[in-house]
This record gives sequence, C-alpha cells and structure tokens, in this order.
Amino acid sequence: MLAEAHEHPGNTAISELSTPCLLLDRAKMRRNIQRLSDHIGGLGGTIRPHVKTHKSINVAREVIAGGNVSGITVSTLKEAEYFFENSIADIFYAVGIAPNKFRTAAQLIKAGCDLKITLDSVEMAEQLAAFAADQVAADADFSFPVLIELDTDGHRSGTDPDSDELLAIGRVLAESAGCELRGVMTHAGESYACDTPESQLAIARQERDRTVLAAERLRSAGMDCPVVSVGSTPTAFAIDDLSGITEVRAGVYTFFDLVMAGIGVCDIDDIAVSVLVSVTGYQKDKGWVITDGGWMAMSRDRGTEKQAVDHGYGVVLDADGAPLEGFLVSGANQEHGIISRRDSTQPVEFATMPLGSLLRVLPNHACATVGQYDTLHVVDGPDVVARWGRTSGW
Amino acid sequence: MLAEAHEHPGNTAISELSTPCLLLDRAKMRRNIQRLSDHIGGLGGTIRPHVKTHKSINVAREVIAGGNVSGITVSTLKEAEYFFENSIADIFYAVGIAPNKFRTAAQLIKAGCDLKITLDSVEMAEQLAAFAADQVAADADFSFPVLIELDTDGHRSGTDPDSDELLAIGRVLAESAGCELRGVMTHAGESYACDTPESQLAIARQERDRTVLAAERLRSAGMDCPVVSVGSTPTAFAIDDLSGITEVRAGVYTFFDLVMAGIGVCDIDDIAVSVLVSVTGYQKDKGWVITDGGWMAMSRDRGTEKQAVDHGYGVVLDADGAPLEGFLVSGANQEHGIISRRDSTQPVEFATMPLGSLLRVLPNHACATVGQYDTLHVVDGPDVVARWGRTSGW
Repeated sequence: MLAEAHEHPGNTAISELSTPCLLLDRAKMRRNIQRLSDHIGGLGGTIRPHVKTHKSINVAREVIAGGNVSGITVSTLKEAEYFFENSIADIFYAVGIAPNKFRTAAQLIKAGCDLKITLDSVEMAEQLAAFAADQVAADADFSFPVLIELDTDGHRSGTDPDSDELLAIGRVLAESAGCELRGVMTHAGESYACDTPESQLAIARQERDRTVLAAERLRSAGMDCPVVSVGSTPTAFAIDDLSGITEVRAGVYTFFDLVMAGIGVCDIDDIAVSVLVSVTGYQKDKGWVITDGGWMAMSRDRGTEKQAVDHGYGVVLDADGAPLEGFLVSGANQEHGIISRRDSTQPVEFATMPLGSLLRVLPNHACATVGQYDTLHVVDGPDVVARWGRTSGW
Repeated sequence: MLAEAHEHPGNTAISELSTPCLLLDRAKMRRNIQRLSDHIGGLGGTIRPHVKTHKSINVAREVIAGGNVSGITVSTLKEAEYFFENSIADIFYAVGIAPNKFRTAAQLIKAGCDLKITLDSVEMAEQLAAFAADQVAADADFSFPVLIELDTDGHRSGTDPDSDELLAIGRVLAESAGCELRGVMTHAGESYACDTPESQLAIARQERDRTVLAAERLRSAGMDCPVVSVGSTPTAFAIDDLSGITEVRAGVYTFFDLVMAGIGVCDIDDIAVSVLVSVTGYQKDKGWVITDGGWMAMSRDRGTEKQAVDHGYGVVLDADGAPLEGFLVSGANQEHGIISRRDSTQPVEFATMPLGSLLRVLPNHACATVGQYDTLHVVDGPDVVARWGRTSGW
C-alpha cells in the first residue's frame, strides 16, 4: 500500500491510464468538503470526519484544510495505525471494540496516539476494565478513553439513552483505574432511508436530542461526559441546531455517491469518484456494451436497488465526465460490466461508445467502490494530477 | 501485498487471531482440488485452473499438486504479472483485452511469459494486429497468441460459433504478422443458474458442443485451432465426455461457497473459506447478535438472494467450524454484521454466542469475499499453520 502521495513531475492524461481504475475529481471533492464545513461551521460546530470512505492521508489533509475539523473518525484499527503513522493523532475508532483488539488499541495509546474507543454494554466495559487493570499495573498513567455507543434509531448497535444500562456502563468506566468515560456517541444509520428534507431534519433532531439526553443523564448521575458525538452524512447536512453536541461525524459526503443522490443529499453532478473503464465488446442484438469494469471494479454494492431509481451497478459518463443519458451498468461479472439502456426498447448507437474507448461509471456506494482500489487517480479536467495511496484491511 | 507463504516456526491458535480475518481450511481445499482433478483426469482431460478466486501462488501450487493441470487462467494482467514472477509461465488471460492493456501483455510475452489473450470481434483483432505490427518491427519473433471468445449461452461476451464473424476474426489473426490464432474459448456462465444435475449436464454439453463446432469451422476454413477451452465450476463437474476439448477452466471449486452449494455442486460442509468474526454486542429485544464482520469483511455479494435458500450475508458456524443451525448474517454495515435467526419467531440463546467470542461465517461468493483480504490464514483444526499472501487490483 502506498502511504504517501505520488505527485508526478508532469501530468498524465486520463486517456493514458490502464483500466479499470479509480478517478477522483479534485474540484468536486473540494466543493463537497467546503459545503459541510460551511454548514457545520455556520452552526458553531466542528466535524470529526470519518475517513472510512477514502482511507487516504491525502484526502484527510484536504478535509482538514477545509476547516472546522477536530480529529478524525476511523472504522478499523488498521486505519488508526495508518493515520497515526501519517501524523494524525486525534482519532476516534467508532466501531464497538472486540477483546482481541484491546492490545492493539493499547499499543497505539502508549505510542502517543490520542485514540478513543467505543462499546455499548456493561459486560464489554468490564472486559475492557479487566484488561486495562493489567496495563495500569505496568504504567500508572495508562487509560482507555471510552465513548458509550447509543442506539438512537434502532439501526444496529448501541444502548438506549433512557436505559439503566447507560448509567451502569458509565459507572464501570468511571470506576475503572484504566478506563475513562469520555462521552457518548451515536450514528443515525436510518437516515439513509430518509429521502425528504423533512424526514432528514426529523431524524437529525432525534439523533441530537437522544444523544444530548444520554449525556445529561450521565452528568446528572455525577459522571463527566465531555464528548457528545453524532453523525451521518444525511443528518450532518440536515441538522439546524447543534446545541449540546460537541462534534459531528460524517464520511461519504467527501465523495458522495448515487445512494446519497437518491435521497437528495447531493446531486449526481456532485459525485467526485468514478471508475474509468474500457469498452471491450458488444452484444449488439441485446443492446449490450461490454466493458472491463465488472463487480470487482465497482464492488457488489447495489445500494440504489430499493431506491426510487435503481442505477444497477452505476451511472455511465463519457471519458470527459459528461453523462451518457439513459445508460447504466445493468449487469456485472467479476471483470466484465454490461452497459445497456434503462429503457431497453430504445436503440443503442454503438458508435457513441467505440471499441476500446473509455467511459466513467459513478458508484452506488463510494465506501464500497473505493475499497476495491489501492490508488486514487486525482484528476483535474483531462489530467491526472496526482496518485494517492490508501490503506485497507484490518 | 505478500507474494510468498509465511510459514511459522510454531503454530498459532485461531483463538489468537484478530478479527475479522479470512480462514482457509486446508483439508477441505485439498479435497475439493482432488475431486475435480479426479473427475477431469478420469475423462482424459486437463484443467487450466482459474486463479481469480484466490490470486495466491500458494493455493495455485496446491492445485497444481492435485494433478491433471496444464497452466493457469487469470482474470487480470496484474494476476499474470504476479504468477509469472512466482514462476508460473503458462497463463491464459481469459477476459477480453482492452487496447490500453496491449503494452503490458506484450511486455509479459517479451519477458518470457507464455501468455495467451482473448477477444471477440474483428475490430479488436484489427486493433491488436496494428499494435502487434509495431512489435514485430522491433522483434521479428514477437507474437500474441489469441483465443477467440465464443458466446455459447447468451451469458455475456463472445461471438456466435455459427457466425461469419468467427471466421473473419480468425482470418485477421491468422494473417497478422504479430498475432497467432491459438484457439477458441467459452465460459458457460449461465450454468450458475442451473440447479439440477440434468440442467448442469445439458449446459455442459452445450458448452462443449458449441465450442468444438467453432473449432471445426475454423479448421474447415483452413485455419489452425489447437486449443479448445471451456469451463465453469458447474459444467466442469457435470461434463461426462471431453471429446474435442483440450482444457477445462474452473476456479471457485477450489474453495466452493454458498452459491455453489445452493445449486448442488457441493455441500455446505465442503466450503473451505470462512471469515472469523468477534461478537461485539447484542440487541436482545430484536434477537440480534452484533459482530465485527460487516460487508467490508464479507463483501457486498448477495449471490444466494435469488436462490431457493437466501443465506443473507452468510451462514454462521462456531469458532471450531460446527454449524450454528438456524442462524445467518441477516444484515451488514461497513464494519458491523448482524446475526439473527432465520425464523425470527424462535428465541436466541445469547449465552451460546458470548460477548467477545469468535464465530465463523461462510461466504455467498468466495471470489468476492476473498477479494476483501490480502492474507489467507491456513487452518488445520484449531491451528493456523500458514499465512498465505495474494495479489489484487489491476
């Protein structure tokens, strides 16, 4: 994996790339970054950007340059190690920790990483406290800063902000020599199913209110709760008042994708990542254009399948990024994509997609598609201006 | 990427691994390899194993050791480069080539790789011939060996074995100074939708007969056609007579998966790869067990969705590999898996999956799931006996 940018002395043209490969439109990315920075900054808040979408130090630096950022959020300890090696120390690992990761998390903290972790049960807090006690025995200053994960929308993990369990977890952490109750966090994942401004605002307020409630309950019980952390891309853009919230986490907004466009959080024209593919053949009687962009290149994500408009495996653009209206990637094998008309009764003018020509495909889900690559080709118009590495795995 | 095996001086226990990670049951893999070797060998044929499922030199060596193997099949030129660097020279790149890959393919051939490529149109043959002419100008011995891709089941790419185009492609190649018509190939991808022995045998015979027909038409027109290549895992096991066929390509049989079990090509107990995950929490009122094996760990592949039994994101086993009957991964976020009962009216005994305990998940589609990892942890009973690297990307 490349950990650093490879800036080229001279630019390469997109037309010289080997396919399939991942393109990142720098101008669109910067516009997306600025949009959330302006919105959250305007509310007096700060963003703790989630880097799971890109896992690239170069993208993280762009997000930080956009302003109103305090630290980052990661989805794996591999990301934490990579970003810490690349000089970002303020890191929140926002996935409930498993016991076999305690040791790696402790090593990062001992190495000087300001790593925060999360969990959502008394039992996991007790397991962590037992492990932490051994760490403290060797180093009296050792401590795991912990955010309690809350369930504010029934989406996946987290404890109920109204529960007795919340206070019980807090007490285990507060009373442990090697743990520190740092705060509470939630992720309103159900916001991905909200496709109107009204429903997005409602779930954003619910996410905020339920999280602030949990923080207040802990404080009323005599515990500290300095961090009150919420976030998802839809709720981050929808929220209109951040009272009581100390940070907003969001990730996919950096690049956006067809799923986000499908619920109206962005326009298709805002999507900053695409997969460059080559036309390798046709099945003319079926109206099929065959490319070398299969599901290994796009990922298997079919996130728009149940949205109002199903984009198959992606929306098709020409090599310059202009839409080829009415086309989508309708099928995919491992290394073959099938492009066809949405309306299969309409004829395909195959001459508009000559054999060997290049096309771009916009992804359903940026996190999944970017995850298939180890390099982002940063483009500015027809030029590749940088190649950025990223991390992956666990 | 690790290119070589990392054999450990002493074994590690599975219980010491960090999750999620990929396990490969060596005994099951060897059984699967032997099964196809015995079947094809019994028919007097040879296998050209497709390495796209594993992309690991160590697995390729196991397949070769199983016998009745002549060369390998790859799905990307990156695989070709990796396996050639690891001393396998007889390689067929079985995806229709794009012009921006001509140069890399030529470099491999010039370096001594016995690389064969494929295409399915006169126009691509002409583009290749034009490129090859420049190579010949520099090196009179240069030649691209080319197999013409056939469409024998309407699945994706390939020209019709009955078409005039077949002969026209053959002539372009045969008359080009820098190309050589090496043969014909097809992949009966529709066999994945055949879920009875009768339908699998029928499509296997169709795949064979249509491919042999194409070879005979080329020969009748005065052209050489030494290679007659067919294959898919279902047809490779179903075929009962290989007359006229020189090689059978198959890949996923090495590991098998739930999609193959769903059409009866293997049993669930034959599946050699699984993802090791940790229990990180519960939503007890919903009957949910939360793990750290989300879709990044499993891939987004939902290949069993339209089969008779939908296995969600995978079938759940205990840490030792024994089935937890009635459970599946019913949902997945990027780094969270949700395990629940297939029959949601049945209670979940959470004590059988303690917090922090390990589980294994069998994948829908081995190619997609293995593609999410850079290391295979080879297991023999409770022990990790090797860590094998693999390649990825393009």
